[in-house]
Formats: sequence, structure tokens, C-alpha cells
Amino acid sequence: MIITLTTDFGLVDPFVGVMKGVILGIASDAHLVDLTHEIPSYDVLDAAFILGSAVWHFPPGSVHLAVVDPGVGSRRRAIAVRAGGHYFVGPDNGIFSVILERQTAEEPCVVHQITNESLFRKPVSPTFHGRDVFAPVAAHIARGLPMESVGPRVLDFLIRDIPRPRPSGENRYRCRIIRVDKFGNLITNLRRTNLGRNFSVRIGGAEVVRLCASYADGQPGEVFAVVGSSGFIEISLNQDSAHGRLGVGSGAEFEVETDSSNH
Amino acid sequence: MIITLTTDFGLVDPFVGVMKGVILGIASDAHLVDLTHEIPSYDVLDAAFILGSAVWHFPPGSVHLAVVDPGVGSRRRAIAVRAGGHYFVGPDNGIFSVILERQTAEEPCVVHQITNESLFRKPVSPTFHGRDVFAPVAAHIARGLPMESVGPRVLDFLIRDIPRPRPSGENRYRCRIIRVDKFGNLITNLRRTNLGRNFSVRIGGAEVVRLCASYADGQPGEVFAVVGSSGFIEISLNQDSAHGRLGVGSGAEFEVETDSSNH
Amino acid sequence: MIITLTTDFGLVDPFVGVMKGVILGIASDAHLVDLTHEIPSYDVLDAAFILGSAVWHFPPGSVHLAVVDPGVGSRRRAIAVRAGGHYFVGPDNGIFSVILERQTAEEPCVVHQITNESLFRKPVSPTFHGRDVFAPVAAHIARGLPMESVGPRVLDFLIRDIPRPRPSGENRYRCRIIRVDKFGNLITNLRRTNLGRNFSVRIGGAEVVRLCASYADGQPGEVFAVVGSSGFIEISLNQDSAHGRLGVGSGAEFEVETDSSNH
Repeated sequence: MIITLTTDFGLVDPFVGVMKGVILGIASDAHLVDLTHEIPSYDVLDAAFILGSAVWHFPPGSVHLAVVDPGVGSRRRAIAVRAGGHYFVGPDNGIFSVILERQTAEEPCVVHQITNESLFRKPVSPTFHGRDVFAPVAAHIARGLPMESVGPRVLDFLIRDIPRPRPSGENRYRCRIIRVDKFGNLITNLRRTNLGRNFSVRIGGAEVVRLCASYADGQPGEVFAVVGSSGFIEISLNQDSAHGRLGVGSGAEFEVETDSSNH
Repeated sequence: MIITLTTDFGLVDPFVGVMKGVILGIASDAHLVDLTHEIPSYDVLDAAFILGSAVWHFPPGSVHLAVVDPGVGSRRRAIAVRAGGHYFVGPDNGIFSVILERQTAEEPCVVHQITNESLFRKPVSPTFHGRDVFAPVAAHIARGLPMESVGPRVLDFLIRDIPRPRPSGENRYRCRIIRVDKFGNLITNLRRTNLGRNFSVRIGGAEVVRLCASYADGQPGEVFAVVGSSGFIEISLNQDSAHGRLGVGSGAEFEVETDSSNH
Repeated sequence: MIITLTTDFGLVDPFVGVMKGVILGIASDAHLVDLTHEIPSYDVLDAAFILGSAVWHFPPGSVHLAVVDPGVGSRRRAIAVRAGGHYFVGPDNGIFSVILERQTAEEPCVVHQITNESLFRKPVSPTFHGRDVFAPVAAHIARGLPMESVGPRVLDFLIRDIPRPRPSGENRYRCRIIRVDKFGNLITNLRRTNLGRNFSVRIGGAEVVRLCASYADGQPGEVFAVVGSSGFIEISLNQDSAHGRLGVGSGAEFEVETDSSNH
């Protein structure tokens, strides 16, 4: 069985290693995979986006442990989720917003509050539920523990608003940079269908009107749009950083004019 | 079987991957877990502290490979340790100080010098014993090789002084920041019992008098104390960096006044 | 079976984790080992050097997945290689240059173009062949898929020139820094035999004439040469950074005068 880990713990401290130790003490044959531990500190929405774009590439039945948890030790709840054949364990603070938004009437998500203290590592530190609550519960679920055994089902779990393009004039939409990747590509909240046949993106003093098929398709120095691997439109340069060139980063807003009405 | 790895090698060079290749060539079903590879270069005491706080969260029988080794290729010895049901492999330079200090008359640590060259990868590079000495020995121990087979038992292994609070006046103690974690929490060498009921910590121009139950318990902007997950008192802010705010870091000394006499 | 991963993806984005998810969906018992994900963006030669120095420490039969791929989505080919009892999967852009140079008449490398789309994850993103082409092909090869099944054998694969010392006068050679490691050691393209009995390296304003047996053998402040663990000569200081001291880095050229004629 596979357990993925997503946190804002970084890799300097031994926090991630310690969680893995706790997991392997319960599920000795778990296959542990790091998604990332470099979520910006406390940035629950960034983790939500990462999880939404990454987890579906794992086989069904995988357990995804996610700990970006500024409210650790407070009264925020801990939850376990079953969605799309996968399992999720983490705080009820919106970290699974993108996952939970997928649910439909035919395929509802199932969310249980984690209350069964017999599963926890004792004593539970009020500063590290990743180690004492989430890691052991994820390990038990990976071993086949039914969701019902972690605690009661809840329906009022937290879903945070994911920023989406919104109208700002005739054929105009206000959009946002969701993330900047390692290569300086600006990942937007636009999808291919949003752009229509013709579009003009104004961002960081540049105007972008061309959709390239790949990064290598861009001319040297050209700022272009491309459909990124997570399905979102990226603003990019060929072997150069759009982030560095345009001076805009995560959270920045920009405007697109398009002949599409799909928003 | 589990083998953890702790080094100052970083993750840019392939040193860690190469050690894992050597281990898997000997113990093909080893479960490899990184504790951290971001120990500051040559900082044996930092590694000692990390190991002391992290390894006991792994199941008994785990092997902990630790390589912070400024004396590689010199006459410093290589050792294997059995302590508290766990195994440790690394240089005899104090890296296991916190582990070895745990020993008691009832539960002594057993330390063997590594001299059995038949276990080594050949030729042994005088610049990378992590690959050629420690990794293969850890793999053999994980496979069940008795400690006696790595070399003779030694009693004069090195334990370095771990800094502890020391009296500096009536009800006053001089303490130290051991580490700064990723969130900017200042991990001190104080334990809960050292603080008593009332205390005053003077550090970086601030006075800290409140012990919060969790990070989230702190008021915005408040510098407070909290019992961290490794059992040490931390100086912290809620969703902010005490390190950034107070401008003090690892190794910094500070004073505490308290009604406790537990030091 | 072992699959190693070498990329320029970094560890902030979930790209590496996603590739692992795809691999584990095909080869659920693969042992995944990161060599490094911190290759400088697009630096194919750096990856070639890393692979050349690291992979032979893994057991024969290992599969090495390498993705530094500025031409992703263009017409550059994808290849699978068998060399020295190991397997390699990645773009045909020179990333396997050091591996492929090893081949001899007795032990030729076998290179196949990857064309069998039935192995790919669909739809194939033109921006992430690591996920959709290389990861699944590596997983299938690890499971025993014959090389013939990935596509036709090719002989005109790309090998890039690896910089080697070249004569620059009587007993003089022009050499290069290949990499700087985490400790600031300057890894050169010189081998031990190149230095002869007496040598003089002029680099960054310093003259280096002593070959130390180990880093710890250096005097405080002394800049010396040492045979590094990858077999190349390094310019180093004992517990200090030659990179920081001399102000020279990767790609820098320097001159050596020697009584050796082995170049």
C-alpha cells in the first residue's frame, strides 16, 4: 500500500522522517512517497492545489497524508476522507478543498472526524499532530481499518474557495497566478477552454497572444502560453523563467481578453 | 528492516543516493528513511540532537546510519552501537552523544569498533566512508549480522558535552538555543520541569512569561514559550518566526529566571 | 527491483512524487531511490556527470530514470539504454553521454528509441514526458519488459563531448571545474594519473602543489588537492569551502603544470 506525504515541514528538520517512523511502526510494508514538504508555511490553499493536481496519478487505494496545520492543538478537527477511490488524512482546514469539490451525487465524498484516541501515539503533543494523530491514522487506514473506526461521519467539513477567473468587462476576465514552478513557469487558474481561439493576456507589462504546444516551441525570449501538465494554462519562456522576466509571482492577478465564453 | 539516514551531505550531490545504492546491493529489502541531510556541514552536535529526538519514534530493531564526519580518512574510529533496542552506525566523533548518554547500569549501550574490512566496499575512498564503510556495515547489521562481527567491543567511545542550563545567579539560569526549526521556532535546552510555575525568559530584547499550550494558542504578535514536540521548550510566535522577530539563532545564549529548582 | 530518479525538477513542486505515483501504479514493488533532483535547470551535462559517477554503486539490473529535458514536446527522441548490466530511460539529448562512452567492442551499449505508445500514460502532455513517457517505460522495464518492446534499436544516439584536460603548452594542461559539491570542494576533470608525481595547479589566485590523502589531512587554511570519491581530483580545504575561498565555480577553467604525460 502507498502513503503519500504533503507538508510545509521542509526537509531540514526531522519532522517528516519521524512521521515515517511512526507509520512504519504500524504499517511496516507501506510504500512512502513524498509529494512535497516545501508548501509555504501555513499555506493551506497551496497544499490543496498540489494535492488536487498530484494524487490522481497514484493507484486507487492510496492514502494521502497532508499536514499544513497552523491550527494544530486548537479546536480545529482532524478528518479522514474517502474520495474517488483514494483516502486522505489531515486537518479539517480546507487542505482537501480541491479533492472535496470533485464530489458528485453519484460519487459522494465520505468524511469522518478523527476521534478514536486508541489509534493515536501517546502522549499526543499539542504541537505535532502530524506525528501523533495523522501519521498513525493514515497507517491504520492503509492497513485496511474501515473509515467508520476513526470516528463519526461529518457533513460540515470545511471547503475553502478556490480562486477562479471572474468577469471584469466585456470578454474580459480577471485571473490569478496559482503557483510558480521550479522553472519559473507561472501556473494560472485558466484552463484551455477558457482561452477560446484568440486571446490576449496582459501580465507584468507583457502581452501574450500565442498558445505554444510545448516549452520548446517558444522562440528565444518569447513570453507565451502553454497547457501545463496539471491542465492549467501556464505563462512561460523557453528555457528561461517567466517569473524572473515578468516579475510576477504566486497570487498575482492579471487580465485576459478572449473570444471564449467558457469561464 | 528499516535503515534511517542522517547526514550533512545535502540533496544536491548524489552522495545520499549512492549510499542507498550500496545498502540495497547488500540488503535488497531494506526500508530506507531520510531523517535529514541538511545538518550544517561538520556540525556533529546538531546531528546528535536530531538523532536523540527522532530515532525513538522508529520501531525497535531499526538501524540508524549517521554520517557527519569531518575526520573522514583520519584516525578517528568507526563504530556500531546498540542502544535501547536500536542500532547505530557512524564515526566515533560524538555524533551519538545523546543516544549514548541514555545508558544506565540496567540497560548499558554496547559499542563496537568497526574493523572488519571484509564488510567494506573496496577500494575504500579516504573521502567517503559513508559509502564504503558505514553504508555496507549498516546494511549487514540490518540483515542480522551480530555486532561482534563488525569488530571488537570498545568502552572508550567519545561522548561530547551536550549544553545544559547552568546557574547564573539566584533563581537564574543561563540557557541556549539548540536549533531553529523551519517555522522559526527557537528550540531551547530547557525542559518543562525547568520552568516551574512562573518564569521570565529574556531573549532578543523580549521578555517571555507565558507558556502556551500550542502555537495556535498564542496571540497575534505575542512571543511565548511552548513545550515542543521533542520535549524541549520553544520560544515561538503563532504563524510567525521567532527567529526572524528576535534576531537570535542556533547557539545563542539567554537567561531565564524561574521559581523551579529543577536544572 | 530498483528504479533511481535524476531530474532538474527540484523538490518544491510535486513533479517527482507524481512520477513515482505513475511508476508504482505499474510496478508496485519498485524500490525508488532519488539520486538528485537539483540538477541545474536544463543542464544535461551535469546530469550526465552525476549519472556516470553514481549509478555503478547500484546493483546490476537497476533502472535509472533521468529527466533533464529542455526539448520536451519537440522532436528530440526518447530512448532506453542497456549498458554495463544496468538500464537507463530518458531523452536522447546527451544525458547518458558518460554512460554511453563506456561502451567497448566487447561490451556494446544497446539503445532503443521509445516509440511504443501503448506503454505511455494517456493523454501524453507535451510538457511532462517524465510522467507520461519515461516513468511508465522505466516501470515496465523494471518489471522485465524486453528492450525490443519499447521500440526499434538505434545507433545514431547523441553523445555530447565531455570536457577533458587539453594541452596548453609544454607540460601544461587546461582543465575545468565540473561541479562544486555541498562542502565547496571543486571537482575537476583531472584524474590521479594526470597529476604525475609533481604538479602545480593555479586556480583562483592560489597555487596548489600538495596532494592530501583525505580532507582531514589538510592544514587549517591550506588549499590542497585530493582524490575525490568519484575518482576525480578535487581542490579542497579542510572543513572549509574552496569554492568560497577561491571564488571559482562550476565551468571555471584553470591550468595545471605536471610531470605526467597521461592526459
